[in-house]
Parts: sequence; C-alpha cells; structure tokens
Amino acid sequence: MTESMRALRYHGAKDLRVESVPVPELLPGQVKIKPEWCGICGSDLHEYITGPILTPAPGKPHRLTGCTVPLIMGHEFAGEIVELGPGVEPGRLKVGMKVCVEPTLFDDDCPPCLDKRRNQCNRGGFFGISGWGGGFSEYVCLQEKVIHPLPDNVPTDIGALVEPLAVAWHAVGAAKHSPEHSALILGSGPIGLAVLLCLLAKGCRQILVSEVSPQRIQHALDIASLHPEVDIKVLDPTKEDVVARAKELCPQGNQGPNVAYDCAGVQKSLDVAIAAIRKGGLVCNVSVWEKPATLNINTLVFEEKKIIGVACYLEGEFQEVIEAISTGKIKNPEKLITAKVGMDDAVTKGFEALYGSREHVKILVHP
Amino acid sequence: MTESMRALRYHGAKDLRVESVPVPELLPGQVKIKPEWCGICGSDLHEYITGPILTPAPGKPHRLTGCTVPLIMGHEFAGEIVELGPGVEPGRLKVGMKVCVEPTLFDDDCPPCLDKRRNQCNRGGFFGISGWGGGFSEYVCLQEKVIHPLPDNVPTDIGALVEPLAVAWHAVGAAKHSPEHSALILGSGPIGLAVLLCLLAKGCRQILVSEVSPQRIQHALDIASLHPEVDIKVLDPTKEDVVARAKELCPQGNQGPNVAYDCAGVQKSLDVAIAAIRKGGLVCNVSVWEKPATLNINTLVFEEKKIIGVACYLEGEFQEVIEAISTGKIKNPEKLITAKVGMDDAVTKGFEALYGSREHVKILVHP
Ligand SMILES: NC(=O)c1ccc[n+]([C@@H]2O[C@H](COP(=O)([O-])OP(=O)(O)OC[C@H]3O[C@@H](n4cnc5c(N)ncnc54)[C@H](O)[C@@H]3O)[C@@H](O)[C@H]2O)c1
Ligand SMILES: NC(=O)c1ccc[n+]([C@@H]2O[C@H](COP(=O)([O-])OP(=O)(O)OC[C@H]3O[C@@H](n4cnc5c(N)ncnc54)[C@H](O)[C@@H]3O)[C@@H](O)[C@H]2O)c1
Ligand SMILES: [Zn+2]
Ligand SMILES: [Zn+2]
Repeated sequence: MTESMRALRYHGAKDLRVESVPVPELLPGQVKIKPEWCGICGSDLHEYITGPILTPAPGKPHRLTGCTVPLIMGHEFAGEIVELGPGVEPGRLKVGMKVCVEPTLFDDDCPPCLDKRRNQCNRGGFFGISGWGGGFSEYVCLQEKVIHPLPDNVPTDIGALVEPLAVAWHAVGAAKHSPEHSALILGSGPIGLAVLLCLLAKGCRQILVSEVSPQRIQHALDIASLHPEVDIKVLDPTKEDVVARAKELCPQGNQGPNVAYDCAGVQKSLDVAIAAIRKGGLVCNVSVWEKPATLNINTLVFEEKKIIGVACYLEGEFQEVIEAISTGKIKNPEKLITAKVGMDDAVTKGFEALYGSREHVKILVHP
Repeated sequence: MTESMRALRYHGAKDLRVESVPVPELLPGQVKIKPEWCGICGSDLHEYITGPILTPAPGKPHRLTGCTVPLIMGHEFAGEIVELGPGVEPGRLKVGMKVCVEPTLFDDDCPPCLDKRRNQCNRGGFFGISGWGGGFSEYVCLQEKVIHPLPDNVPTDIGALVEPLAVAWHAVGAAKHSPEHSALILGSGPIGLAVLLCLLAKGCRQILVSEVSPQRIQHALDIASLHPEVDIKVLDPTKEDVVARAKELCPQGNQGPNVAYDCAGVQKSLDVAIAAIRKGGLVCNVSVWEKPATLNINTLVFEEKKIIGVACYLEGEFQEVIEAISTGKIKNPEKLITAKVGMDDAVTKGFEALYGSREHVKILVHP
C-alpha cells in the first residue's frame, strides 16, 4: 500500500489545490527530504496567474520528465533528510541533516551540463515546475548531487532563499562585477534585492536601485540602512530622470555605472539600463520578458555597450552562496522574507497576497 | 598667396564635386601627407545616397571640428609624407616615407581617449567625415600620432585597406575570438570579408559566411579558395536555412558557432545570428543599423547569449594590422580591392558603381 502525503498541486491558472498524493518512491541514488520551508517564486506566481507557461500543459509532456500538469509546485526549498535511498552511503549526506536543494534538472550526457552549465541543459527543466515533484509537499526524493548540506548557522528558512540568491550570485559573477564597479539595479523585487545583497557581499561601494513601487522602494531602503558605509541610492523613475541621475552620481570615467542589472524586464527598464551605463558598459538582463523588446543597436555600436542574458546558476554556485551566507559575506538575507504561512494558507496568504500588492518580497510556505 | 589643390567635396546627397580648395596650413605638431590611394567606405556611400547622416549638416557644426558640409571626404587612405610641420623632428616619421592614417578624431582630455578607447571619445568624429580635411584630396595635414609608417612590403594601395581591416581586427579582438572558436559571418561586403581575413589571420579553422548577393558570395568563395586547409562554408539564406545548417556544421558543444559577426545590420541577419550561435555564444554586431531592431530578450536569458556592439578600433590596433599584413598573417588583403579609379572618375566609376551593384567590394581612388 502506497503511503500518501499532502502537496500543493498546480492544475492551471488560478487553480492550485492542496491534495493528498502518493509519497514518491525512493529510487536508488536518491535521498528523501522533508521540506520545512519553500518560497513562492515569481515564476510560480506567473504560472498561477496566466499559466501554464513553463509548466508542461496537458498533452505536452516535458522533454526530460515526461510529466504534464497537474504537478506539485515549489523549487525554492530546504528541509531535513529523512531517508537515504539504496546505494547512498551516509557520508556527505546523513539522515537528520538540514539541506537545501538545487532544483535545476539536468542531463548527464548533455554537453553544457558536462561543462557545469546545467542552466543551459538541452533538455533541462525545474524540479517543482517541470514535474518529478516539488517543494510544496511533505516529502521529495532527489538524486544525491543536487542536495547541499546547510551549516548549523544557516536555518532552513534561510536555506529556502539560497535559490533566488544563487540566481543573483550567478548574475553578478557573469557580469564579472568587481568591487570598484558601480551598479544600477532596475527593479527591487526579490531578484533585484538579491542582486543588491550579492553586490554588497562582493564589496561594491556604489549601487543605485531604480524602482517604481513605493513598497519595494522601502524594502531597498531598509537594506541600504544596514550598510551606511556603502553609497546606495534608491531612485524612483516616476519622479526623477534615472539616466541623468546615474550619470551625475557616477561621474568617474565617462559617466554612468559600469553594470546595470535589469530585474524588471520591461521596455522602460531596458531603455534606462542601456542609456545609463557608461560607454563600454554592460547590461546584465536577469528578468524574464513577457514580450519582445525594441533595441537601437547603434547605441551598442557607437558606445560599445554589451547585453548579456543570465539564467539560474552554474554547478558550484549553490555551495558558494551557502558559504557566503554562513560566513556572513551575504548579510541579512532574512530581510527578503516578508511572511511565513502554512500550506492551507499558501494560496490566499501566499499567491494571492503576492499578486495583490508589491508589499511582500518573499513569502515562505511551511509544507 | 594660398596655394590650391584638387579635392572631392561633399555638399549633400548625390552632390560630390571635384573642386579647387586651399591647401591646408601645416600647423605645429602636424605632418603633411600626399594621399596616394583612398578607399570609398560604406559610410561615404551612405552620405552620398541619403546624407548628411554622420557629416555635420549646415547649421549643425561638429562638436569637435566645428565644421559643416561642404567638406572633403575620405578616411581610408595612405600616401607619402611631404613635409614635417614646426616642432616635428625627423625620427619615427620622415619626408618621403609611405604612411597610412588613423582617421578617428579624438580629444586629449577625454576619459575614454586617455584609456586608449578613442572609439568611445565623447566628442570624437572622423577625419574625412567630420571636417578638418579628408583623404580624397591632394594634401592633408594631421597630427603626428595618427600617422603610421608602412613597411616596405606594404604598398599604399594596401595601406588604404588598413582602416577597414582595423575595424574587423577590433571586432575579432572584442569578441575574444580564439582559434578553436567557430564563426558565422553575416554579410560579406567589405567589412564581412575583412572579418573573414582577420579570422583566418587568427588561425580560425571553421568559418561560415552567410550572404544574399551572388556577387558577394563569389568574393567570399574566392577568398575561401585560397585557404583549402580551413573549413569555410558560404551559405545563401535565400536558398537554405542558415540556422539549421550552422547547427549541423558546428556540432561541437551544444551546437552552433561560438561567435556570429553581424556585418549586414538587418533584422533577418540579427535573428539568424542569435538563433545560430550555440548556448553561451556571442553576437558581435559590427554593422550600423538603419532602424531599431526587435529582440526576444528571453532567448538571451534561457540560452545565456550575449550581444556586443563594436566601433572602429582602439589605440594600437592600427599598428597591429599593419604588422599582421607585413608579416603575412593577414593574407591577400588585395582581394578586397575590385577597382582603382582616378579622382575625376570617383563619382561615376566609384560611388555610382558601388551603389549600382554588389559586384564591387572596395574601390580605391587615386587623388
Ligand atoms: N534569469 C533567471 O534565472 C531568473 C530567475 C528568477 C527570476 N527571474 C526573473 O527576474 C525578474 C525579477 O524577478 P522578481 O521575482 O524580483 O519579480 P518582481 O515582479 O517581483 O519584481 C520586478 C520589480 O520591477 C519593478 N519595476 C517594474 N517596472 C519598472 C521600471 N520601469 N523601473 C524600475 N523598476 C520597475 C516592479 O515594481 C517590481 O518591484 C522576473 O522577470 C523573473 O521572471 C529570472
Ligand atoms: N562598427 C564600425 O566601426 C563600422 C565600420 C565600418 C562599417 N560598419 C558597418 O558595417 C556594415 C557592413 O559594412 P559593409 O561596407 O561591408 O556594407 P555592405 O552593405 O557593403 O555589406 C553588407 C552585406 O550584407 C549583405 N546582406 C544583406 N542582408 C543580408 C542577410 N539577411 N543575410 C546575409 N547577408 C546579408 C548584403 O548583400 C551586403 O553584401 C555596415 O552597416 C557599415 O555601416 C561599421
Ligand atoms: Zn526561482
Ligand atoms: Zn570606414
């Protein structure tokens, strides 16, 4: 007889249900985890509002998992190991250990994956989006190597933040951001704020944030107030000319920040990003866009500017983030958490609350 | 009494005149050169067809030169030193020497210029486009440091090609193209072919060229035939699916060339460039665009692709190109020259011939 457990399953737009489903079978090489905290990500919210987008719609099974909706959601989670599967020897991982999970699904014989670029996997997807289970459930079974132990000073609520922080960590790494580089962050939602924390961790001394929502501006200011030694300015594009201010605030070289991180993903944020950076500067686009952008390529030519897109994280970056949190390089990650709710409240006090206002940043669910 | 000389002056669209103008005064720190060969550049042609575009229109003096049209054209030239101005001691430069000229105008107290990035000068422009003279004339006077001696084995007709080759050399450098990288060149006009020569000079072993014009395809094939040891394929997007062919021809890694050079500058070439490159790959846009492009930023995100724009060349790159020609690293640059004409034929057999068909690549004028 299969045991059953409770899980939050996605059936389609506006249709998330707490249901009783079978506990997943623990396969050889896998580890069973009981998630303690799982964050609601912007992509989860997108699926909830207008999906299926990334989730495999009925009749269109995912190329790697073969699953379709309904499926269990949640890819930003941490919890406790409850069982080691056949062939997994206690060592790096043991029963009772607190761990977090790297949710990128990958393919062992895919060239980018073999090159540590799981984020460019030819068949890849996400645990919690593409099938095989998700963090909003009582138990998950995952292969050993995507499970990362959390040091004693990193509790599982913070462990649930490792995923979005790893996105930001990867972005800052891909932009080759050095401490002398000034930065402009467009959009201070969870991802923009995570970029802010990672830039602070890298020792950046001048960071501008541009955000349209008053609540989100406040969140950026709260983090800034913890770092009086760093020159952080939060700008409101509805009230000031962000490009002009960026040129004025970063007068070094030929003016403007070295790197702009687009964490808003709208035409206006991209236009500001490109115009604000200095000649030879870089736009690092982290955001996922809802429609194509219009771009004046000549600006890239005559000012030798660059645009890169970044996705998720490379193999190894999850561990770097865990260590950066544990050693205090990434400071106050808890500032990203604005609410904690139980599974039964996940829809109303989680998804609906996030959708309703920009007051929240990250809401964690206790499955 | 001021001496006079003949020069090709641009008055506006379709209005280029061979006129008698005063010989420019030789100022302190300057060197007087008698141009022997001067190439017609795509930008010159653009000015001729629909200008003023880059040339300063009447009433809009150039921010550095203060000049407006009419002005002498020509920025791709080489010739002989005829006089050293006050304060220029014979040494690196001597009367009788064959030299070529780096036409980027720059500003001695501009931060990018001080950093060898004259191409990003805040006030910069071009000798032969922005005023102060141009190569389609009997004499030019220029400051010492933009003048580069040509070795004995580099005649002045080849010297006139250093400028477009330096554009390509810079592009290949900015793309950090290493010999193992495969390349796709979009558009085999003078710039695309110059990129081809520079990639061959760097030791690249796999190069795809995509071109729509049969004559330009033939020019690419002619250069390819001189390099049987290199895998060069010339593709015609009107007859085959360049993206699919690029994936098939470059199966290494996760498929597609590492770098695409857009030397065509139209929506279709950019679309092909982005789609054809492998995940993590780079589009190096060399072209100047006539209108804004549409871009699906999500492709950059999910496949971690990059776009950079490149302009002209950095300080030092002109000398690198001269040396690469002289030492035979850049082979057969003369293949770019498809006609040589006198000044009186410059309009009819030069500008009009280039405009009329894609048969020509580079036409040199003997001023
Ligand atoms: N690349 C990746 O791997 C990855 C991973 C996770 C999320 N994302 C994407 O990153 C983006 C940000 O994620 P999030 O969860 O923070 O989203 P979010 O929607 O919560 O935050 C976006 C913020 O941008 C602000 N904004 C909107 N227009 C603006 C403008 N013109 N100027 C300045 N700010 C503006 C909004 O007010 C909002 O606060 C999303 O597009 C998301 O899909 C990408
Ligand atoms: N960045 C710089 O510093 C710099 C310097 C010089 C020239 N340029 C620019 O570089 C570009 C190329 O210069 P050029 O003189 O070789 O121009 P060109 O017009 O002679 O060549 C462009 C070529 O692209 C081909 N083409 C058009 N559509 C195509 C498509 N869809 N696919 C493949 N090929 C296509 C055309 O047939 C043509 O042969 C121009 O835009 C020019 O303004 C830039
Ligand atoms: Zn996420
Ligand atoms: Zn030119």
